[in-house]
Formats: sequence, C-alpha cells, structure tokens
Amino acid sequence: MPHSETPPAEVGPLLGQTLAAHRNWTRTPSKARADVLVTIGDALEAAADELVPLARAETNLPEPRLRGELKRTGFQLRLFADLLRGGDHLDARLDHADPHWPMGAPRPDLRRSRRPIGPVLVYAASNFPFAFSVAGGDTASALAAGNAVVVKAHPGHPRLSDATASVVRSALEDTGTEPDLLQVIHGREPGIAALRDPRIKAAGFTGSIPGGRALLDIAASRPDPIPFYGELGSNNPVFVTHRAARERGDEIAAGFIASFTQNAGQFCTKPGTLFVPAGSDLTEKLAATSLPAGEPMLNPAIETAFRKTLAERESHGSVEVLARGEESDNAPAPTLLRTRVEKLLADPATLEQECFGPTALVVEYDHEAQLVAAARSFGGQLTATVQAQESCDVGELAEELAERAGRVLFNQWPTGVSVTYAQQHGGPYPATTAPGTTSVGTAAIERFLRPVAYQNFPQHLLPAELRDDNPEGFPRLENGRPAERDR
Amino acid sequence: MPHSETPPAEVGPLLGQTLAAHRNWTRTPSKARADVLVTIGDALEAAADELVPLARAETNLPEPRLRGELKRTGFQLRLFADLLRGGDHLDARLDHADPHWPMGAPRPDLRRSRRPIGPVLVYAASNFPFAFSVAGGDTASALAAGNAVVVKAHPGHPRLSDATASVVRSALEDTGTEPDLLQVIHGREPGIAALRDPRIKAAGFTGSIPGGRALLDIAASRPDPIPFYGELGSNNPVFVTHRAARERGDEIAAGFIASFTQNAGQFCTKPGTLFVPAGSDLTEKLAATSLPAGEPMLNPAIETAFRKTLAERESHGSVEVLARGEESDNAPAPTLLRTRVEKLLADPATLEQECFGPTALVVEYDHEAQLVAAARSFGGQLTATVQAQESCDVGELAEELAERAGRVLFNQWPTGVSVTYAQQHGGPYPATTAPGTTSVGTAAIERFLRPVAYQNFPQHLLPAELRDDNPEGFPRLENGRPAERDR
Repeated sequence: MPHSETPPAEVGPLLGQTLAAHRNWTRTPSKARADVLVTIGDALEAAADELVPLARAETNLPEPRLRGELKRTGFQLRLFADLLRGGDHLDARLDHADPHWPMGAPRPDLRRSRRPIGPVLVYAASNFPFAFSVAGGDTASALAAGNAVVVKAHPGHPRLSDATASVVRSALEDTGTEPDLLQVIHGREPGIAALRDPRIKAAGFTGSIPGGRALLDIAASRPDPIPFYGELGSNNPVFVTHRAARERGDEIAAGFIASFTQNAGQFCTKPGTLFVPAGSDLTEKLAATSLPAGEPMLNPAIETAFRKTLAERESHGSVEVLARGEESDNAPAPTLLRTRVEKLLADPATLEQECFGPTALVVEYDHEAQLVAAARSFGGQLTATVQAQESCDVGELAEELAERAGRVLFNQWPTGVSVTYAQQHGGPYPATTAPGTTSVGTAAIERFLRPVAYQNFPQHLLPAELRDDNPEGFPRLENGRPAERDR
Repeated sequence: MPHSETPPAEVGPLLGQTLAAHRNWTRTPSKARADVLVTIGDALEAAADELVPLARAETNLPEPRLRGELKRTGFQLRLFADLLRGGDHLDARLDHADPHWPMGAPRPDLRRSRRPIGPVLVYAASNFPFAFSVAGGDTASALAAGNAVVVKAHPGHPRLSDATASVVRSALEDTGTEPDLLQVIHGREPGIAALRDPRIKAAGFTGSIPGGRALLDIAASRPDPIPFYGELGSNNPVFVTHRAARERGDEIAAGFIASFTQNAGQFCTKPGTLFVPAGSDLTEKLAATSLPAGEPMLNPAIETAFRKTLAERESHGSVEVLARGEESDNAPAPTLLRTRVEKLLADPATLEQECFGPTALVVEYDHEAQLVAAARSFGGQLTATVQAQESCDVGELAEELAERAGRVLFNQWPTGVSVTYAQQHGGPYPATTAPGTTSVGTAAIERFLRPVAYQNFPQHLLPAELRDDNPEGFPRLENGRPAERDR
C-alpha cells in the first residue's frame, strides 16, 4: 500500500512550526547544539533493531550494510558536534579599528562570523536510507549550522522515514528542544510547494540529474532564489596505465569488479568507466572473472530504469558485452560492457552518462596520451581515479581530472565516501549544482551558514565568538592573523 | 560618440585566448600570483594622471573621490597578494589514513585544498569606475584565486575601461604573464554570449535588481548552470531609538544627510530609510537643515531613471516631501521624503525599494516595538543600522536586522565599505544572489575557488600545500586540528 502524501493544506502550517522551532534553535549556542546532536546520534543507533528491519524491508539492502550505514549516520552527527565545540565553522574574524588603514580611509571596528542561513529543505536519497535520508548528512549539517530542517522523504522508504523522524523528534524532546526542528513531508507536490515557500532559505538534494535539475530550476525561479545544493550524478571514470595493468592486473580487476557491483552498483561514486590498455591481459582478466550474482535493487522503479538504460547501452552500435553475472527475478545481472576510446569520444553524451546500477564500461586505448584526451571529454564528476605506478608520469592526467572532479584518487576505488575533515563530495555540474561546496565531511556545514559583519557593535550585542573576551575560546582571525588559541 | 560593441564573432576566439591564459595562470603558485597582483596595483596607481581624467569625463564623479577610489583599487590587489602569501585562502586540510576511524570503516589518506574555479566573467558597475570595474574587487579576487577574467565593461565608462585594461595588460606583460589573462568586452549581447559560453565557469555582477536578475536567470538556465555572484540592490534602513534621537539628534541628522547625499547618493549602501521617533525634534532638524546642492549624476540614463522614480515616490499617497536641496540642469535636487511607519508597512513593496540617487525616506514611529515589526518587513539587505545609546535594549532589533543583512552597524553610517579581512558585503536576495558569500574583503576570494580532495595521492602529484613537507609553510588543518605554523 503506498504511503499517503502530506495533504497540501498541511504544508503551510508545518512550515510555520518549522520557522518557530528554527528561531529558537538559531539562538541556541554552538556547544548546546552539539549536545543535542550527540543525543540524536545515540538515539538513532540505539533504535537499530527497530529501524534496520524497516530499512531492509523497504530497500532490499543487506543487513550488515544497513547496520554500518546507521553507525555512520550516528558518527556524522557526532563529528558535527565536535566541529561545533571547536568553533572552526564560525570563521570568526575581528578587525580592530585602524585610523591608518592603507586603503586610504580609516578602518572601522568590523567583526564577522557565520549565522544559520534559515530553514532548510532536504530531499532524501533512495540509496542511503540512513546516511543521505531523514537524519543523514544534509540534515546533520543543516541542524549543526543552527537551522530547522524539513525533509522531503524519498518514496522508496516512507515508513523508515517516519520511524527515523520519530526517533529524532523524541531525542529532541528529551533534550528540551522543540521536536518541530525536524519534520518530514511525503509526496512530490508537497515537496515542490515547500521549495517554493519563502520560509525555506536553502535546499539540499541527492538524486538523479533530471530530478535535481527540475528542482534547481524551481529554486532559481523563485521571486527570491535560494541556494540549491544538489548532488546529481557522476560517471566516476578510472584510468589504468599500461604499467599498472601489467603489474597489478589481478588486483585492479578484482577491485574494479567489487567496486562497481557492490550493493547492485547503487552508489553515486560507482566507477562507471574503466580505461584499460588494448591488448593488455587486463581486458581478458575482466572477461574471464566470473561476475558476482545480481542483488535485488532498491525498488521496482529503479530496477526498471536500470534494465532500460542497460538495454539501450548494449544496443549502442559501439558497445559489446564483455561479461555478465547471474541474474534472477528481481536481481539484474551485473554486466560489463566494452568499447574503444575513439568510439567513446564519438558519442560521449551517451556513453559517459551515469547508469545507476551494476554495470560499467571498459574502454580500450592504445597510447596514454589518449587518456588525457578522454579525461577532457568528461563533464563534472564527483570522483575520478588513476591506477598507475607511483613513479610513472601521470601529472597531466591527474591535473585534467582535478579540473573536473571533486575528489581524485590514486590506486584506490571511489565507492565508500569517508566522512572526515578533508572530504570533498562535490564537483562541477552535473556532479553537483554548487561546485564550491561539499555534501560530505565537516566542510558541508558551510552550505547552511551565512556570514554577517558587525560594525562598531557594543560588546553585549555581539555573538559570543566576536566579543573581546571570546568566552568559548573559539579560533579567530584577528587583523588577518590567527589569534592565540587556548584549546 | 558611443563606444563600439565587441563584434559577436570575436567573443568566441577571445574566450579561447582567455582559457589558454587561464590554464597557465592556474598552474602559477600562489606566491608568484601575489607578485603579479602587486605589479598590477602599482601600475594602476602610477597611471592615475591618465586614468582619473578619463573617469572624470565619463562619470562626473569628483576628482578627489576618483583618486581615492583608484588608491583603494590598488590596495585591494595588494591585500589579495598578502592573502595569497599567507595561504589561508587554500583552506588546506590533511586527514592521515586511520584504520580505526570511528565511522566504522578505515579512513583513507585524504587531503583537500581549493583550486581556481575556471575563467570568470565580471560585469562592471557604473558607480565605481575603478573599484567595481575592470580592475575592481571581483577581478582582483578572481585573479587572486587563479582564474582568467573577462570583464563586460559598463557602458557608462567605456574609454576608461579600455584604458584600465591596457594598464593591467601591460603590467601582466611586464611580469611575463599572458596579457589575455584580462580581457574586456563591450555591449549587452556580447556580455550575454559570454555568460552562455561553456568556457566561463562563474560570474560576478554589481548593478540593478532587474539587470542582475536577468543575468542570474541566464546563468541558471545554461545546460551547465554556473555560480552567479550578483550584488543587486539594497535599501539599507537605519533605525533611530527615542533616546538616540534626543541625545544625538544633531549628529544623527548631519551624519544621515552626508551619507545619503554623498556623490549624489550613488552608492549601493546609501541609507534609503531612516526611522525616527514621531514628535522628536529630529524630524524638524532634518526638515530645517539645508540639504546640499545637487551633484551631476553618473550619466543621463541614471539621472532620468532617478527623476522618474523620485517623481513616483513623491506622488505616492502616503509620502510627502520633507526637505529639498538646490537643483541645477544636470544635478537633481537631494530630496528627503517623509511617511509614517503604518503607511510604510501598508506598501513595503514600493516604499522599501531602492531608489538609486540622492533621496531617502524618513519614517516616523511611536513605540520602539514598531521598529522590530518594520525590520521584519524588509527583504535581504547589504546593510542595516541601529542608532541607539549603548545601554539601551535593542537586542531584538539587532537580531532581526542580522537575520536580513550582510552587515549591521551601530552608530555609524553604511556608506564607505572598508576593504578588510572581516568585511561582509552581501546578504539575502535581493541584496545579492549568493547570501553565503561576500564581494568585498579577503573572503571574496572563496567565490572563485573550488575544493578538491586528493585520496591516497603520491607526494609528487599533490599541490604544494598538501605535501608532507609543506614547502610554503601554509596553514593547514591536520586531522581536524590546526597544524603548527611557521610564519
């Protein structure tokens, strides 16, 4: 039975509650927000035995993966809590008044830090029912930044979405925070109505290119356009040099197959293209390795889309099937396709498009110079990977890939996005709609903050991090130089 | 004689040259870029006797103002050079591999810094022929970030634009840098063609709401949408409390008049609204002070627009003229209008709109609680100002203003935007199209950078700031904590 949509008449009042909760949360100090995030993370992990079976039933994902993903979800919240306690996210800057400022006019006392941007709308993803859904990365960073969040649930796991929201809202109540700080809505039209509502000040999205683009266009066409942080799609090409194919062929073949077939290839960082030297035995190894059996996909809509796109690729005049795994009723066969680099370059618009599911394209080339040309044919990517010997000259290739991708890898595989301080999960369009930002890692909080400068303000009206006495001991730039820290 | 437009057929080849120059500049280390910026700044100031008369002839702005603005323009370039030498703009982060990372999966070696976003298109402003034009703030920050720049000249000062570009290009040649790093185009259609060109990766704009919105919509509707950093318009309201009006009435009247009439009110930060207590003698002081004589406006188009908008405001049923200065042929009279706060709140869409030129609206109120309600009626602002005694309780008002403005001031005036580390020149729409960013101050460089993470990369392929040995001694975050610095 399909989950019922949020009645259109309820969206407005719900956003009213969101705004009220937002106002109080905005005024809660960073360190108190940190405690709340920890409570939410702990509550989610404690509810694993309730949430994981629901996720299992709604997404077909294997239980160990789901338990790991839930752990990651709790970890994300705690990592943002750590960030809030440190204060780096505020980017606090103090310029003291300077009558001799060399600009040619006296410098006033100016102090700048970052404030919450306003209530945030998060569109949940299908393929990470915990880590990119109701209490996932966008929600964690938006809450950490001091904003209320409305999540537009993914229709693939509506019951899990409600159950997750219920755990989060109880945790909020336990800490004395208004539960309306997090709300969930269901349905396409309510999701669009919320995006058009002037109370929403930013949106985060993880999903397909067509879906993300449609929402981006709505956000951009509002009377007051708002930032739309969409993670849309990526091919994640991998480039194997001659020497790497020769010296690490087995390892590369195994790593590649594991990476593109894992969880039925349903990762935004799945490597969709592998460039291999023609005539090397890597291609033969790939053809000879038995691909794993298919796994059920997230839901029938995604499976249907995958089968359709795969069939189109297979019937592309330039493409042939290199290897295929076992198929069962609701578990499409992992499929490796093959082409030549010249053929890829003749139709990159089709052959470099993401195909969400367990398939990838092996592209044979002759000379490594062709890899640089091939790299240049790609649009914006979340990731791009080089498989090479350290001593080999792949500088030009790496540079071209860094021009196009948010993350470049060397001799590792792009699936498995670590949540860290230095992570970058983003990239030029169509990988994302906001190439200067990330949706994973601590820097993700910047998307939901807005800087404000206070000129000549009295101490008692300044945010704590900008007062002379810096009561929290937060890091600050003073007259352009890092001030002494005491943490 | 109107300046000739760039022929449409020339835009494509010009962008090809831009891209070529961009590629080399991108690979120039930060510190070498700093030296080039200093050379450009020095060359511009050395050319004052050539450039200032041109600016004077094309903009009507007074010579001292123009000389000061040129000095500011050189200073901006040198301040970005300082930033490049310090390395803060790279936001370098190193996460060393950690097999026990509590996320639940081993953490790979991840290193992240910021790269140039790609060739930048800058739309010059009319009212700052130096500081927001060919070699102005957007150009300085985009060049500092490592990008080539194409400037769409403002039609108000085309000859100055060419002359400025010529000085910059000569300075580039003197340093051995390709002069095509900076190019200028003229004309509306060439400006739009460049914005649609896939080689352009970001745009900066300073100008009107209709003009900025039209360009934002083009940037957002590209097959690959790009960041569009537009500074559009602002009313910059000022709120005077009862006690401030009583105790500092003369000072406030004088400061306000100087601020809204300076250079014919042609500042994006001109205070457009002044809330004063009804029945206080501040209103009478304002009515009694003789306003300064009009000054010629930037150009006939701007003067015509001002006269039209002012006439509409004067004929608004809720508005009356409070005071008027002297008028001459091409110098419209500074004009103070008056209304009541209830009337303002009845038609904020009209009465809170920016009117570019020497006019402002005095709004009388009774109770200070009305100020908070009035503050809430404003859309996004570049600035908002409180005039109050320090001991008075204006916390709620200041908070509401910080919710809406990029810069909030206490007992100072918003005109005169200091170029510093802590400056914030931005704000929610329509003040800007990108509320999380600034167009003035060192943080402006962030708009033209894009983060990239390098996973498991060999040392020799990493950008210098991410290598173990950190040859430049740049600041870095190591495992989430600031690393030792040696500068």
